[in-house]
Amino acid sequence: MVDYQIFKNFQKHISLNDAEKDYLKSSFILREVSRKDLVVRQGQICKKLLFVESGSLRAFNVRDDGKESTIMFAVRDWWITDMDCFVNRKPSLVSIEALEDSSIIELDFHILENLYLEMPKFERFFRILFQNAYIREQSRALHNISFTTEERYRQFVESYPAIVKKVTQRQIASYLGVTPEFLSSIKRK
Amino acid sequence: MVDYQIFKNFQKHISLNDAEKDYLKSSFILREVSRKDLVVRQGQICKKLLFVESGSLRAFNVRDDGKESTIMFAVRDWWITDMDCFVNRKPSLVSIEALEDSSIIELDFHILENLYLEMPKFERFFRILFQNAYIREQSRALHNISFTTEERYRQFVESYPAIVKKVTQRQIASYLGVTPEFLSSIKRK
Repeated sequence: MVDYQIFKNFQKHISLNDAEKDYLKSSFILREVSRKDLVVRQGQICKKLLFVESGSLRAFNVRDDGKESTIMFAVRDWWITDMDCFVNRKPSLVSIEALEDSSIIELDFHILENLYLEMPKFERFFRILFQNAYIREQSRALHNISFTTEERYRQFVESYPAIVKKVTQRQIASYLGVTPEFLSSIKRK
Repeated sequence: MVDYQIFKNFQKHISLNDAEKDYLKSSFILREVSRKDLVVRQGQICKKLLFVESGSLRAFNVRDDGKESTIMFAVRDWWITDMDCFVNRKPSLVSIEALEDSSIIELDFHILENLYLEMPKFERFFRILFQNAYIREQSRALHNISFTTEERYRQFVESYPAIVKKVTQRQIASYLGVTPEFLSSIKRK
């Protein structure tokens, strides 16, 4: 059996035998996407939880006035979606684009809900995944409120070296909520 | 048996019989705290996940330069802690204070880890709890980056009417990362 990255990701927190891997493989959809392809469109319902097998994705929001903000990145071995859209069927607040040719795995909402019932260890896996995602966002909220852009840039570079390698300075500036020029002036210091 | 609010909270997502409630009751600590008491101290390890039976709490961070930021609030029926501290034993980035005389329930980290193994439905409960917490923080990150303070204030008031009743305008300003004067000028508009 192909040793998908997603199996290694699951096995960080739960163990899987070959039969379970087979079952999982039949539950997910592997998609190849090209650079600049949109895998989720802002304003639409995103029915998929996405896992990056290889490549990289970026989630961004565009306001009515045209202002674009980067909300998150996902590189190999990361999960990404607009969770409120995925769980509660609200229109997505973000679009998600491929930053390069990428392989992604899509998990459908109903298939995931079934998985929780049929294989309760996935409750454990996603409990830990969401717990860690919550920790990351809680820390981000604190940094956004109480830290300077310079401190937030340094913290981003230290926390996510794999992302920094893949994205442009313009995209990092957009993630930090500053102009590219302001980010450059900080980096020169 | 006293019908604790925490049982109603659990029963939003899982069912509990009387034996399970008894077992839970023996696992948690009910504490009465007075207004201004600190239940978590910034820089220390917080070993407890907190649930508000009645009253209200506020989590805040104080920087080296003395600047204080409100990170979150918790009113009756809410959970609160510094999750990175609770899960990963990192020094807490926040203090948590009682905004009024409050009854809180403390769940110890090891007891919770045991609960997951002994009663797997708690994996489900906390999977849903952390999933919703993640949704809330993801939405907050998006609003912090791409919305104006006026839009964020309006969204806060609409989303958390129970909190707005309990906290001061100064505390809301601190949560939004603006001065109380700036918040007043927005509200006058």
